[in-house]
Amino acid sequence: IAGFVLKVWKFLKKAWDIGVDDPRKVIHCLKVGMALTVVSLVYFTRPLYEGVGGNAMWAIMTVVVVFENTVGATISKSLNRVSGTTLAGFLAFGVHWVASQSGHKFEPVVIGASVFLLASAATFSRFIPSVKARFDYGALIFILTFSLVAVSGYRVEELFDLAHQRLSTIIIGTSLCVLVTMLICPIWAGQELNALISRNMDKLADSLDGCVEGYFDHHGELEDSDKQPGKNLIGYKCVLNSKTTEESMTNFARWEPAHGRFNFKHPWKQYLKIGASMRSCAYSIEALNNCVDSENQAPESIKKHLSNICLKVSSNSSCVIKELAKTIKTLKKSSSIDFLVEEMSSAVQDLQNEIKSLPNLLRPAELLLPKSKETEKTTSPIYLLEVIPVVILVSLLIETSSRIQDIVKT
Amino acid sequence: IAGFVLKVWKFLKKAWDIGVDDPRKVIHCLKVGMALTVVSLVYFTRPLYEGVGGNAMWAIMTVVVVFENTVGATISKSLNRVSGTTLAGFLAFGVHWVASQSGHKFEPVVIGASVFLLASAATFSRFIPSVKARFDYGALIFILTFSLVAVSGYRVEELFDLAHQRLSTIIIGTSLCVLVTMLICPIWAGQELNALISRNMDKLADSLDGCVEGYFDHHGELEDSDKQPGKNLIGYKCVLNSKTTEESMTNFARWEPAHGRFNFKHPWKQYLKIGASMRSCAYSIEALNNCVDSENQAPESIKKHLSNICLKVSSNSSCVIKELAKTIKTLKKSSSIDFLVEEMSSAVQDLQNEIKSLPNLLRPAELLLPKSKETEKTTSPIYLLEVIPVVILVSLLIETSSRIQDIVKT
Repeated sequence: IAGFVLKVWKFLKKAWDIGVDDPRKVIHCLKVGMALTVVSLVYFTRPLYEGVGGNAMWAIMTVVVVFENTVGATISKSLNRVSGTTLAGFLAFGVHWVASQSGHKFEPVVIGASVFLLASAATFSRFIPSVKARFDYGALIFILTFSLVAVSGYRVEELFDLAHQRLSTIIIGTSLCVLVTMLICPIWAGQELNALISRNMDKLADSLDGCVEGYFDHHGELEDSDKQPGKNLIGYKCVLNSKTTEESMTNFARWEPAHGRFNFKHPWKQYLKIGASMRSCAYSIEALNNCVDSENQAPESIKKHLSNICLKVSSNSSCVIKELAKTIKTLKKSSSIDFLVEEMSSAVQDLQNEIKSLPNLLRPAELLLPKSKETEKTTSPIYLLEVIPVVILVSLLIETSSRIQDIVKT
Repeated sequence: IAGFVLKVWKFLKKAWDIGVDDPRKVIHCLKVGMALTVVSLVYFTRPLYEGVGGNAMWAIMTVVVVFENTVGATISKSLNRVSGTTLAGFLAFGVHWVASQSGHKFEPVVIGASVFLLASAATFSRFIPSVKARFDYGALIFILTFSLVAVSGYRVEELFDLAHQRLSTIIIGTSLCVLVTMLICPIWAGQELNALISRNMDKLADSLDGCVEGYFDHHGELEDSDKQPGKNLIGYKCVLNSKTTEESMTNFARWEPAHGRFNFKHPWKQYLKIGASMRSCAYSIEALNNCVDSENQAPESIKKHLSNICLKVSSNSSCVIKELAKTIKTLKKSSSIDFLVEEMSSAVQDLQNEIKSLPNLLRPAELLLPKSKETEKTTSPIYLLEVIPVVILVSLLIETSSRIQDIVKT
């Protein structure tokens, strides 16, 4: 029993932490509760009850199913639900008319066959990626409504009334949901996406800095700095795993009306490209990190010789990334970005020259055979530093500037 | 109009390709259609109609919502739906009793407050990761049923009947779904997961081979081999992006009964670990690939000197990965895996020795200053090859052997 209580306590603790960590989640829950309570009024109040009838439960159901965390998701689900219901309703009408014309005996056959065919087709359409991304929920609702209306048409004579009631309750439910999400502490998918991307960029910059610094301080102050940089270092892991989130956010953001600093035609697709380049940047940091952690380490002398220039390259690169993050956050073209990029390129050039002169430096010191291997070890992170991320950064820059031009245009 | 027709044609073409590519998807669609048609019989046939009443539509709805592609997903959703409905039903009973005791005036207040509280709490629980992974759908159904029963209790006097009918129709719907998914061409999430992992391993091995080969053949037969290896090379990208799929599959696989060669207590969680190591392996291939594509290339002489040993390392490594893939596919401990790993380690050792002797080889040839930089370039992929993937492969091996031991035990 004590174990069980402990488990429950731990669970509650975790839930509390989540709530404290992101109070908007708590607000979202309260919003759901509110919307549901409001929609219950539809059922409690007599006049409304007479209007929409026993189908008021469809309004409740709509609120429960459609209400999502972000505005974009709610709007997209609402539109899907309404359009799916409408389309399926009309089709079911047609099928029902055909069935009633074909005589009492064939009626079940016609309806059964049409349900089978349309349900299979709609299920198949959910496997097509472009449909799945946007109309997955709509297809589901289409199947549901079609089979309900078609089958219930066999019993209920007032088919038109049924469909009309269902549609009107669904519209009441969806419009309530959309109003509540948009008016009470709205959480915009676009804003979230923007924040996610710029946060990830900052993390990337911190990881890059932390990784290179960690490499050169490895023996110096290992004991002191072991805890603090560890946090920065794992920052890039978030970047690696954020692909799915980015994609769904972009999908939802397209449904949202203009809000805050974002126009209706904000180029959301550019975020996906930026995310992709960030991910490949994160891959190279991962490789770098592996070099840092590997057992064969370069001797102190070479490290010391290269540390300044390496640190310069990494700090310049991370400066550029941070500037880009700021650019994305504020949606304004940064004036200093060109200058920073130039500084970074010149630092990379310096580093390349340094490496070219390194063998000369090594030979007189007579540490050729055993150390030359280590030299390559040292330079391996540098190469990664200079070849891969620079290419990526440049492409990032090109994309960002094109994106900024898009914003300037709209 | 021609453009529209072309678009529709393209869309149909794509849909056809998907169907041809994976006929099981088509079968799944037919299964959905069949289950829906069968459940419509519940409504068509009189005797059944008398039994479960106008709530037969709940059965239809259950089939539409619960039917998923894999057996595990269907079972997990069914269990979620049934338990969510039951729990919510009992709670709603309690609330309704309290409300009816508190007098006519306070009844709406009590019900409204309880809906608000419970809906908020259940929504919040969906944010907790451990709940979200397994009971996300159950929480949704809990909110839905609770508010429906609580609110409708205000009007419908026969509350017990309503709940009982709803539950029995849902059980009819879910058991039909589970039967259809399990008996007609079942698609097991566990099997899919197994196939995915071993397919990804094969892709990884091919990419590794293709990448290293591509590097050393770069200038030789670029024109001929440009198309064919490109396909192999991008194989590792699938590995990078399969995290979400793996997680949901693992989640579903745990719900599945014993099937085929998989026991009930199959260690599905090990697959996640294997997937994670495969992903870090793919990161290093990504870094390798960037080196191959970069502009600064090593001179031919050094390349030639190293090519044999590098190719040996990569082919040995990919042999080990392929052997692992086979091990996973057959679920049998491979007899040759220890031997292959030993061979790989010795090849890596050879490569390390080769690199140590490389500077000696360079000096007499008098290509020191301009080339030494290039040497490091050449060795950079080697380092990645030897340091990172070997560590990963060893950890992979340890994990796999522990997994195999688990299988042997059960």
